[in-house]
Amino acid sequence: MAKVPELNREDTVFMSGVEQYKYGWKQFISFFKLATDLGIEATGDLFALKKEWGLSMFPIDVHLSMFLNALRSQASEEQLDKWLSKCIGGPIIGTYAQTELGHGTFLRGMETTATFDGVTDEFILHSPTDTAMKWWPGGLGRTANHCLLYARLFIDGLDYGPHAFFVQLRSLEDHKPLPGVELGDIGPKMGWPAIDNGYLKLGRSFLFLFYDLLPWGLTARVQRYADHVRIPRGNMLNKFVKVTREGKYEKPPHAKFNYTTMVMVRTGMVEGSFETLGKSVTICVRYSVVRRQGGSDPGEPEKQILDYKTQQQMVFHHLSVAYAVLFAGKFLRQLFNTFAHRTDDQDFSVLPELHATSAGLKALTTELAAEGAEYLRRYCGGHGFHKFSGLPDLLNDHLPQVTGEGVNPVLYLQTARYLVRQVENVRKGAAIPSTLAYLANYKPNSPGRFSATRPEDLLKPGVLLEAFRHRAARLIFEGAEAVTDLQKKRGLAFEKAIDEVSPDLVTAAKAHGTLFLVNSFIEIISVSFCLFELRYTDGLTFFFSFNFLSSSKHPMSS
Amino acid sequence: MAKVPELNREDTVFMSGVEQYKYGWKQFISFFKLATDLGIEATGDLFALKKEWGLSMFPIDVHLSMFLNALRSQASEEQLDKWLSKCIGGPIIGTYAQTELGHGTFLRGMETTATFDGVTDEFILHSPTDTAMKWWPGGLGRTANHCLLYARLFIDGLDYGPHAFFVQLRSLEDHKPLPGVELGDIGPKMGWPAIDNGYLKLGRSFLFLFYDLLPWGLTARVQRYADHVRIPRGNMLNKFVKVTREGKYEKPPHAKFNYTTMVMVRTGMVEGSFETLGKSVTICVRYSVVRRQGGSDPGEPEKQILDYKTQQQMVFHHLSVAYAVLFAGKFLRQLFNTFAHRTDDQDFSVLPELHATSAGLKALTTELAAEGAEYLRRYCGGHGFHKFSGLPDLLNDHLPQVTGEGVNPVLYLQTARYLVRQVENVRKGAAIPSTLAYLANYKPNSPGRFSATRPEDLLKPGVLLEAFRHRAARLIFEGAEAVTDLQKKRGLAFEKAIDEVSPDLVTAAKAHGTLFLVNSFIEIISVSFCLFELRYTDGLTFFFSFNFLSSSKHPMSS
Repeated sequence: MAKVPELNREDTVFMSGVEQYKYGWKQFISFFKLATDLGIEATGDLFALKKEWGLSMFPIDVHLSMFLNALRSQASEEQLDKWLSKCIGGPIIGTYAQTELGHGTFLRGMETTATFDGVTDEFILHSPTDTAMKWWPGGLGRTANHCLLYARLFIDGLDYGPHAFFVQLRSLEDHKPLPGVELGDIGPKMGWPAIDNGYLKLGRSFLFLFYDLLPWGLTARVQRYADHVRIPRGNMLNKFVKVTREGKYEKPPHAKFNYTTMVMVRTGMVEGSFETLGKSVTICVRYSVVRRQGGSDPGEPEKQILDYKTQQQMVFHHLSVAYAVLFAGKFLRQLFNTFAHRTDDQDFSVLPELHATSAGLKALTTELAAEGAEYLRRYCGGHGFHKFSGLPDLLNDHLPQVTGEGVNPVLYLQTARYLVRQVENVRKGAAIPSTLAYLANYKPNSPGRFSATRPEDLLKPGVLLEAFRHRAARLIFEGAEAVTDLQKKRGLAFEKAIDEVSPDLVTAAKAHGTLFLVNSFIEIISVSFCLFELRYTDGLTFFFSFNFLSSSKHPMSS
Repeated sequence: MAKVPELNREDTVFMSGVEQYKYGWKQFISFFKLATDLGIEATGDLFALKKEWGLSMFPIDVHLSMFLNALRSQASEEQLDKWLSKCIGGPIIGTYAQTELGHGTFLRGMETTATFDGVTDEFILHSPTDTAMKWWPGGLGRTANHCLLYARLFIDGLDYGPHAFFVQLRSLEDHKPLPGVELGDIGPKMGWPAIDNGYLKLGRSFLFLFYDLLPWGLTARVQRYADHVRIPRGNMLNKFVKVTREGKYEKPPHAKFNYTTMVMVRTGMVEGSFETLGKSVTICVRYSVVRRQGGSDPGEPEKQILDYKTQQQMVFHHLSVAYAVLFAGKFLRQLFNTFAHRTDDQDFSVLPELHATSAGLKALTTELAAEGAEYLRRYCGGHGFHKFSGLPDLLNDHLPQVTGEGVNPVLYLQTARYLVRQVENVRKGAAIPSTLAYLANYKPNSPGRFSATRPEDLLKPGVLLEAFRHRAARLIFEGAEAVTDLQKKRGLAFEKAIDEVSPDLVTAAKAHGTLFLVNSFIEIISVSFCLFELRYTDGLTFFFSFNFLSSSKHPMSS
């Protein structure tokens, strides 16, 4: 990679957005060619390598990741036979069109419709309002010719909620939008300059004025003509769900099948948070060694800024957080792999735990990485404000993770809801997942006692772990109790009660996520056999790669 | 302003850095023309208006602010007569060249030299190393033809430390660098795209190889020839300091005269922090009202996101911080005005208090604004990542304030040193400034008791103020005691002792700064007569302008 001129980011800091988009394509082509020459498939390994090398998003990344993954997990075998070869190295480039201008986190608010037309055996696609416009899909602006469209399925006036559809958007001949398709680039963002995030409106409405000569004179009437987009019935992804020729809806075996792509993306974001934080901290540590400023005895060289206690306090903190996020990501990936493996047998039992854990960890680790990257940038002084340091682009390319795929308060509350329900299970004596064993061991009415008696005790991982467990359990039990109280005493519904104490529940979910990080950290450094591998990637950054035994104990089981 | 097409920022989000630089000039010309037509002088009021309107930095801003201010405060009457008219609307455009590639916060480490040459009655200017290069001056890259150069003054081998010199850099004929001057643009940064921050190297060295035919054969020797930049002796700014024709250095009456521009800039940064935070919070509040997402009863419109408790917790917090920063800035400006007024009579007695207060408040308020702007951006979800929201550029244009003019840990420690010394004064029973009266009232050996006994008490400003005073005083006394202990028991010098406990001292300085904010807030909302003025400036932002009576009590005097 070092030998390919396009595979560096140095020049991109001088480019405009459009230039970076074009350069992104150049980079992808060089990268793909290199991989092909070396016989490496365009899989996860290749993406990891690309990230490690410090390349930003390619315009085609959403096609290669979310589009292909969602297609593979939600299309039937028959559909995959028909489409997949055209999507891999073929003419089809897709994007993932879920978020709308007015609808992000709250999926059920989605407005785009797919109405089954029994006469023609088609779905009619329509964006009924401006807020129904698809907004943000990466690659939609200039790149993609197809998409996986998420739209509410209507059959005979009945609303079946959001489903996924395989939709062609642009001509494969001249790349022009197909009739009834209006799309384009949404414009410049804070980061991801090479990604052409786009908007999409399906179906146009025209108003026609008709004049009718009636016995009592000339009257005018307005008639609406809708030029909607139509796709064959077979374009609904139907690995789990189906609409028959007669318009019968066949239910999925498990209502949550739609969440697979979501938990996969969130798991990837936890891992990505380490990438951001690990690189930022590496740059800042090295800068702190090289940079000298003030504080020396006369005649001596100035002091390395890493020798200042204020610098150490900040740099070492984020250095340890980076490792904690790395380790937590490894354990989360194990949980995801377990889930993914079992779905092949239609076993979704791990999903609630995975969904709750990945939601809270996505929120926590993306925030920790954003905070760390910004502080580490600041602790390089003015030089961290300069793009040549690499830090501004590391941060800006990370920031979409913080708000994307669910804003963090909403994600924390998803975790909190799950935790509140697990408290119920603990009280009933029902089984709870191993990551929540500490809740079963918690005694709500005995406050417990911090086991440290001397300052040195604070260096013992067990003492710290106990304190983090206590904090998380106390906050979760208090939150659960508050919710129960509001339900019983004020007669609130579960969701209203959750909302009423939501700031406290967010705190509880953060405490649980932090415990997961602390636990992962302690588990790896004290128990597992680690293989540390130090790799030198380029002039600026070192990278550590950890390959620990996959048999290591799950970190939260106590 | 609304009628002038160039005076909006909407189009700039699509521009490259070079295009934004050019557009910045267009904007400045339109803006200046408008002001001239309206008979408004290019003073502080005009700049405030420009900021309020949401325009970014102009390429000429460093000339109009730091360069002209420093010139006015450090040049003699005679020098001003000679130069000022050429600097205002004339051919001279200057910049402020202090920071070097290797030397920011630690002024004494500066490497650029100005050596007095008694033979020609000139100063010889030289950048002896690469780290001595001036780095960051705004406008230096492409705009300025002059600068105020900060360089160590040498006379007869004696080092008199940094002094300011008026130096021409580029030809007034063809804008080409003068002989011996090497300069250019330092390249792209995270924000301020229209500012051409630059580098500057003064003087070139050549090595010549000479062959000498001597009786014992041919020998080679290397001789260094230096093509340094020379300026007349009269180009050293000498309102306070002078070098005579005979090379005699005449000392300034007060050693700290150099800090005037610095405290002025820091005071401006506190005010600027409100601009950033005030605008960000305005955008986020309005978005939170307009945006609806989830959480509704069936059949009802979705809930306004401002009705979520988690949104309120964040938005209202930063809303109140914005006001606190605004009020603190007003009081700091009063203190600065008092100082500036007295310097005319060579009275610098307010400087230590102003220096310490402005350092800590610069650090605290720039951090609060950066944190607030980033969180408010996130709480607009994905839309806050889009440049059209205005939030990314508000944040990026604010970030240089966080690290510029002294990185924040260093500034907190400047405040802490002052506070530690004031504790000594309290112990000796000496007079202390009114902003520190609470230290005199603190009783180190009686822990005190929080006066709130019921939850409602927490709503009383007096109760909160007492708690914030107690916290700040306790931390400052503990820090001072730790420093004294290290000096007495371990024999450390003052500076070494400060460094040893620096993280705790930063905490103490933050507590003092936070008290200043809390105090200013309570003072204004409860005592002063305020004139609230609501102004509608453009489609996106409302702006409040407070004109409170300048006779209001200083907030920290108790």
